[in-house]
Amino acid sequence: MTPVSRPLPLSGFPEWLPGQQIVAQRVLDTLRRTFELHGFAPVQTRAVETLDWLAGEGEANKEIYLLRRLAADDSEDDDPGRRLGLHFDLTVPFARYVVENAGKLTFPFRRYQIQRVWRGERPQEGRSREFTQADIDVIGDGELAFHYDVELPLVMADALRALPIPPVRMLVNNRKLAEGFYRGLGVPDVPAALRAVDKLDKVGPHGVAGELAVQAGATDAQAKACLQLAEISSEDLSFADQVRALGVSDPLLDEGLDELSTVVAEVREHAPGLVVADLRIARGLDYYTGTVYETLLAGHEDLGSICSGGRYDNLASAGAHRYPGVGLSVGVTRLLSRLFRADLVRASRPVPTAVLIALHDDAGRPAANRLAAAFRQRGIATEVSPTAAKYGKQIRYADRRGIPYVWFPGRDDQPHQVKDLRTGEQVDADPATWTPPVADEWPAMLT
Amino acid sequence: MTPVSRPLPLSGFPEWLPGQQIVAQRVLDTLRRTFELHGFAPVQTRAVETLDWLAGEGEANKEIYLLRRLAADDSEDDDPGRRLGLHFDLTVPFARYVVENAGKLTFPFRRYQIQRVWRGERPQEGRSREFTQADIDVIGDGELAFHYDVELPLVMADALRALPIPPVRMLVNNRKLAEGFYRGLGVPDVPAALRAVDKLDKVGPHGVAGELAVQAGATDAQAKACLQLAEISSEDLSFADQVRALGVSDPLLDEGLDELSTVVAEVREHAPGLVVADLRIARGLDYYTGTVYETLLAGHEDLGSICSGGRYDNLASAGAHRYPGVGLSVGVTRLLSRLFRADLVRASRPVPTAVLIALHDDAGRPAANRLAAAFRQRGIATEVSPTAAKYGKQIRYADRRGIPYVWFPGRDDQPHQVKDLRTGEQVDADPATWTPPVADEWPAMLT
Repeated sequence: MTPVSRPLPLSGFPEWLPGQQIVAQRVLDTLRRTFELHGFAPVQTRAVETLDWLAGEGEANKEIYLLRRLAADDSEDDDPGRRLGLHFDLTVPFARYVVENAGKLTFPFRRYQIQRVWRGERPQEGRSREFTQADIDVIGDGELAFHYDVELPLVMADALRALPIPPVRMLVNNRKLAEGFYRGLGVPDVPAALRAVDKLDKVGPHGVAGELAVQAGATDAQAKACLQLAEISSEDLSFADQVRALGVSDPLLDEGLDELSTVVAEVREHAPGLVVADLRIARGLDYYTGTVYETLLAGHEDLGSICSGGRYDNLASAGAHRYPGVGLSVGVTRLLSRLFRADLVRASRPVPTAVLIALHDDAGRPAANRLAAAFRQRGIATEVSPTAAKYGKQIRYADRRGIPYVWFPGRDDQPHQVKDLRTGEQVDADPATWTPPVADEWPAMLT
Repeated sequence: MTPVSRPLPLSGFPEWLPGQQIVAQRVLDTLRRTFELHGFAPVQTRAVETLDWLAGEGEANKEIYLLRRLAADDSEDDDPGRRLGLHFDLTVPFARYVVENAGKLTFPFRRYQIQRVWRGERPQEGRSREFTQADIDVIGDGELAFHYDVELPLVMADALRALPIPPVRMLVNNRKLAEGFYRGLGVPDVPAALRAVDKLDKVGPHGVAGELAVQAGATDAQAKACLQLAEISSEDLSFADQVRALGVSDPLLDEGLDELSTVVAEVREHAPGLVVADLRIARGLDYYTGTVYETLLAGHEDLGSICSGGRYDNLASAGAHRYPGVGLSVGVTRLLSRLFRADLVRASRPVPTAVLIALHDDAGRPAANRLAAAFRQRGIATEVSPTAAKYGKQIRYADRRGIPYVWFPGRDDQPHQVKDLRTGEQVDADPATWTPPVADEWPAMLT
């Protein structure tokens, strides 16, 4: 490669150092194990979708990265059914996967999917252009029972509880509730009203009132009622009475209130303190049709939601055939960025290695290799020293890498010895049976 | 989303069904565990590199996928230092990562990296446009001892031996050997000769002879000698005598012969039967400077190499500072495609779930959820039945998903019971202590 000037990090494309990557792996392993314990099967989809499959999603369009072969001629790019873009979430690709493979899947189909996604948004803390999501979804064939709206937050509660992170609070709402309320209120353009209220955190109540008037055609009184609805939140079922007190009635509002009450009541029964009914939650993506979820990390609410999702009844369809689903997605990169930035967790060492075998001289390397192989056979992560330098230098190499033990092979009549670099203690040891303490076998998570 | 017609698979972008993905995960877990046992630390790099970092690699250029934001204005694409492309391997990004983070790493730095890469080539069996690679590399600061050229094939031998695949044979060569031979022979354009001989499998000896004459300016006698060199292979050190017998001498040839002899002799000592010196192996990528490796699967040689790599002394540099390395990369997608197509391995079931808790009626769901939580606490992957349909229907649901056990909660005075769907046997069981046999806890790999 032609030497180029020192490369610069790209804003919005975070990378971790090895010690951080060890933490990231542990987080992903924990999520995966929890999802599998709940019977979710693994799925991975290709990173690209055709533009016409990606492009149904309104606002997200702007953020799509298109692909183009450097060697392509222009004609290849004309047909939107052949133009490829990187996926911006895992739900839209999964919907396509389900439609494509429906005949080979058993419904309701439970899957988890852990992959990177890409959005060309302006990078800022908690929002990067490339990030990893960990999703669970249940998708039905034709219909999907409501009890999955209760089950999925409970699965995520298990998964998040197993991570080295502060406690979480899941905010729950229901699209039908807001939509029915606006309709019952007589707001002329209900979808525009939903979009306006979704901006509450960004533009504040005054800004939303303005948008409700201009975009949704709402009167002052209607705008005020919309904002009052968005202010309602409760850990118990009292939110329903507060909504009723606003004096609006509509069948869809009733359905939304019923569904939200069921989610709050049943999740509370299994996981007290986890959920809060919060009527300002809307979720940006257009495809949600019922329950919606967002999740805040205690003490890090400014980070935004670290686990979001909802019910989507119309995302996947093939002709008249529908595959309704409900899903939740952990923003792994957003979560990890904060964990690292706030120094909430780190690995006890940046390498898997538990023991370094020192070399007295170069001739000892084959024997050291055989000893290392025997250690690995017993599950001990082992390296042989890069050089037969003075022992002091080899020990410094291990120390700089955070390797806890250095092994000195026996020579002539002398026994093998092992040194704990933390305590400095060096003792005789039998290579056939020596094992590091369980806590030292693999890097530990220090919180 | 606007309903579109049924989506079609994209040629070159393979996706697996859940049962296949379970196999894929197991393969990746096994590779990862082996790499970690050998002290390789995990690294992940962003999927994109700047075009000027990617574009040093000659032939690979054609295959790069460029990225472009759908909403971008044209001016963003002018500067090649800001144009982004998807990486086409993991070595070039890793070299950039090392240069960028050199101050925070300890050398020699050992890392593994398992990620997808993209190449816009024409798809065919064994060659897709999106695929997963599993790489190990050791990179030094300024210099890197030769013994790593011996160590890396041994690590891969451990990793591949642990997979549910036929035995492998690793073909080894050395760039210096061929380059020194062509130079000693007096071929006018040595790089052109290397490229010509690399096409031996594609265009045959006659085609290569033509290219040697036209592209490298070789005489007939020189072309014949080049082809004779490429025919040499041996499991032992006899290849060196066969080369000497061709009567060419050159210091670089001597160096290449020495290095290749060392690799063959020392790998044989630790892993008899693994390597073969094969002097036709060249590897397409320009960055290799010494040892090169390819790996064939016994009985599936037509698939091409499933694990390739080599020594690169000049890939990563910052100013006058060099970071030489040696690495090997498993073509995981190529390997899996063949395993699935030839039905060499499959998962015993396409879901992680070991037991389904049946429901007598909907009112039993909360109790079933609590029982499921207790099972999961003990490491048993558990689902609760989607519906309280007739038991026969619930059993069929479990059976279609390949779940081995169905649990019937006790009612009134009746005890809990568990049914093994393979044998049909149904017995009383204690929910506090019941555990499936170890072989049923997670999906098994059937070969």
